[in-house]
Amino acid sequence: MKNLSRPVPPGGTIGIVGGGQLGRMLAMAAARLGLQTCIYNDAPDAPAFQVTPHHVVAPFEDADALAAFAARCDAVTFEFENLPAHAIARLADSVWVAPGADALAITQDRLSEKSFVEKLGLAVAPFRDVSSSEQARAAFADLGGPAILKTRRFGYDGKGQAKVTSAEECAAAFEKFKGAACILEGFVDFAFEASVVAARGADGSFAAYDPPENLHEHHILRSSTVPGRLSPAQGDAAKAIARTIADALNYAGVLAVELFVGADGSLTVNEIAPRVHNSGHWTIEACQCSQFEQHIRAVAGWPLGSPVRHADVVMENIIGAEADAWENLAKGGALHLYGKKQARPGRKMGHVTRLKE
Amino acid sequence: MKNLSRPVPPGGTIGIVGGGQLGRMLAMAAARLGLQTCIYNDAPDAPAFQVTPHHVVAPFEDADALAAFAARCDAVTFEFENLPAHAIARLADSVWVAPGADALAITQDRLSEKSFVEKLGLAVAPFRDVSSSEQARAAFADLGGPAILKTRRFGYDGKGQAKVTSAEECAAAFEKFKGAACILEGFVDFAFEASVVAARGADGSFAAYDPPENLHEHHILRSSTVPGRLSPAQGDAAKAIARTIADALNYAGVLAVELFVGADGSLTVNEIAPRVHNSGHWTIEACQCSQFEQHIRAVAGWPLGSPVRHADVVMENIIGAEADAWENLAKGGALHLYGKKQARPGRKMGHVTRLKE
Repeated sequence: MKNLSRPVPPGGTIGIVGGGQLGRMLAMAAARLGLQTCIYNDAPDAPAFQVTPHHVVAPFEDADALAAFAARCDAVTFEFENLPAHAIARLADSVWVAPGADALAITQDRLSEKSFVEKLGLAVAPFRDVSSSEQARAAFADLGGPAILKTRRFGYDGKGQAKVTSAEECAAAFEKFKGAACILEGFVDFAFEASVVAARGADGSFAAYDPPENLHEHHILRSSTVPGRLSPAQGDAAKAIARTIADALNYAGVLAVELFVGADGSLTVNEIAPRVHNSGHWTIEACQCSQFEQHIRAVAGWPLGSPVRHADVVMENIIGAEADAWENLAKGGALHLYGKKQARPGRKMGHVTRLKE
Repeated sequence: MKNLSRPVPPGGTIGIVGGGQLGRMLAMAAARLGLQTCIYNDAPDAPAFQVTPHHVVAPFEDADALAAFAARCDAVTFEFENLPAHAIARLADSVWVAPGADALAITQDRLSEKSFVEKLGLAVAPFRDVSSSEQARAAFADLGGPAILKTRRFGYDGKGQAKVTSAEECAAAFEKFKGAACILEGFVDFAFEASVVAARGADGSFAAYDPPENLHEHHILRSSTVPGRLSPAQGDAAKAIARTIADALNYAGVLAVELFVGADGSLTVNEIAPRVHNSGHWTIEACQCSQFEQHIRAVAGWPLGSPVRHADVVMENIIGAEADAWENLAKGGALHLYGKKQARPGRKMGHVTRLKE
């Protein structure tokens, strides 16, 4: 293992695995701090390749490419959690990796994630392990319906999910996922959705942003509004949930916790994202230190920045062909486009942040 | 001339001549809008090369390199004004260039700049053309002292300037500048310095930021504070001055006008910078659309963004060895480091912006 210098000084290189818009915005935040970045992605033409001269194109399982990448970097992080565990272990052999392999292992599997959150004494939706058609039927009978069958791994934006209203539907949905391990989740009755984006330094320091209210359409985030309908007390409770989780994971970096907010004010943990999060994009304009800079600071071992919000704000995603209206979108707010060539349906092409003036 | 598409659509390429920190921050702003950038610089290892995969290293007089650069770009701009006029003309032959050659020609020469401003009916320091030792003596006798002899071209951060207190000193200073054409400026009695950073679109649209109060040390900007001691009425007057100048230049892009503010409230134009300006760096954090994004919008033919300031703010430059304290500087605010390897005395290494929370 090389002699790791922490904090990584200006001029050092942060490796970012994943070349999408999150990697792109992380690289731009690193540049502001005088840090260089190298992006590792499994396909060329990645959005993040447009904002740094250094990148690697190789499969995420390529041991040699990972080793060479690690050798170029002073610290490594990820823009997404669905990486093979052995790839992370390979990187961690030779370079500081944040968040660590443990945090990724827990959060990339819905069953281990939910079990972990439940053990911390935090509210989660009722859930059952589903590894066979028989278990699928039994789980539905146990939880009652309607419920949602979800693959344990590799789901995002509603992919790998099916709503089921009977034991037979539940078994059929399991078959459709081709034997992938699943969990069945009971429905949570909620008034609205929210999230909390927070950072923990490797030294235990902690900084949470104000929790936005989130609106989803077709399982894709449509908008985040701050302040939303969360009361200040609920906001504090949400931040405390994020801290409990981050401390228990001995986390370094930014994480997001998606929450269901009940009509009775209760907060139920939906899922944890061990990375910067779409519902935190508004921090670029509304806070002195954005979630992207905050993550880079935590990964590089720098002091965390201020998460104080200095404006009310709404962030709206630009999805698919909506990006064609870029000229109009540029009139109304801070426009972010991710450099993606093809505007496929459901694809996140950019976002607009509007500060209330 | 190629078929120019304006506005330049997302995915298009903005060429930036000059690879310093201004070019770097312009490139980062372009990336947020989904635009690509190509940096042209006369030396390798430029700060701006770290934030884009596309660059050219060639002398600013290299006609072939300029032509090839223009061919790669959909629009071209500059991070500094001291470019040979024929290089600009060469670019403008084949690509949209903003600001245009006329604006650069006027503002890169102190004599033409001051004459231009005076003709607009705006206050400037008294000045005289100095092209010989005899003129140097006569100019001093005419204006009285103390006064400042300045080379007409290529001055920045106090370079090419000498304070003179007698006709003989004035002639000696002229000799020291080795025959470079100069002007002699009478001293302006001012209470403090300010500036106004504003943008004009090629369509005549206009957007000005709140004018900061500026503090200089050893001819280098130390800090910009908004709001400073300018009254709201003086702020409006400063914005009106910027608009008068921008309209008269038929300007496209961001410009800055440095001002002396008299104890009686008078505003005297010191100089015009036909580019983004150090005294506007605070707009990154304190405004929805920064001066860098604003300039890219104007150059690309996009609608201008909102210049509304949503927080009180102080920007401080990090000069020379001050950058060694980066870890402490990172604690107190939004830290920007420019990726320069050597912290030479007087060199701008970065800046810190502090929002008042």
